[in-house]
Amino acid sequence: MWNLKGVDAIAPADPAGLETLGRSDCYMLLRTVPIGRIVFTEAALPAIQPVNFVLDGDDVIIRTGMGSKLAAATRSAVVAFEADQYDEDALAGWSVVLVGRAEAVADDAERRRLARLGLTPWALGDRPHYIRVRPEIVRGRRIRRPATL
Amino acid sequence: MWNLKGVDAIAPADPAGLETLGRSDCYMLLRTVPIGRIVFTEAALPAIQPVNFVLDGDDVIIRTGMGSKLAAATRSAVVAFEADQYDEDALAGWSVVLVGRAEAVADDAERRRLARLGLTPWALGDRPHYIRVRPEIVRGRRIRRPATL
Repeated sequence: MWNLKGVDAIAPADPAGLETLGRSDCYMLLRTVPIGRIVFTEAALPAIQPVNFVLDGDDVIIRTGMGSKLAAATRSAVVAFEADQYDEDALAGWSVVLVGRAEAVADDAERRRLARLGLTPWALGDRPHYIRVRPEIVRGRRIRRPATL
Repeated sequence: MWNLKGVDAIAPADPAGLETLGRSDCYMLLRTVPIGRIVFTEAALPAIQPVNFVLDGDDVIIRTGMGSKLAAATRSAVVAFEADQYDEDALAGWSVVLVGRAEAVADDAERRRLARLGLTPWALGDRPHYIRVRPEIVRGRRIRRPATL
């Protein structure tokens, strides 16, 4: 179901069975899933919304409706973006979290370029608004129970 | 892979193909997954951490280490808790978000009762700290592309 081939943990498992993943492993894993979650603040409360996304270099690109709450709440805000995958039977999984500033993509040429990245929102309707998240923090961890347990 | 049997949307799909789920459907879906995500604030930045959880009535119960960042950051804080499930092939899925105050469970009898709920953290190590999230907001939505697309 999920694939950790080639993942090279940079730190050994801590006592809790968690491994810290290096930046390149984080990006490799992000490329294996179509859905992530944007974490932001809405009316002073913590908010989270699943989104599908693509990577543009190290940046996360999402699409939303022009007047959407997500577009409004993430305007030049610092947001977190998270993706993960878990295997319930194996009690194993990984999670990657990026933190950075979200910005609307205003430049027309840039929007045309992003339109070719193959980001098709699952939600229907007109979603012409592109949001770019430029990560300043990239963190990942993997959890895997020792086979002996 | 995921099961929407019995889910009764209370609102028809909006133009984006999103349906709003009623509270009882939200809880029914929450009971089908072992992993959710706690959304909180850490050093003034948005933070998110996957956790396994159980429900105690309408409350979400998680376990963590006594000195963990999660325990510190969520102490009497308003947090969001999210769970979701997606089927990539069907372009369909659901997401449920609860928002409420997190509190440490301090009472010994209460802790013994929670210990019997079968919440086994995937991470190893001593995790004697129980956190209860009492939801004040419960929101869920389902996305499903019309078959005609």
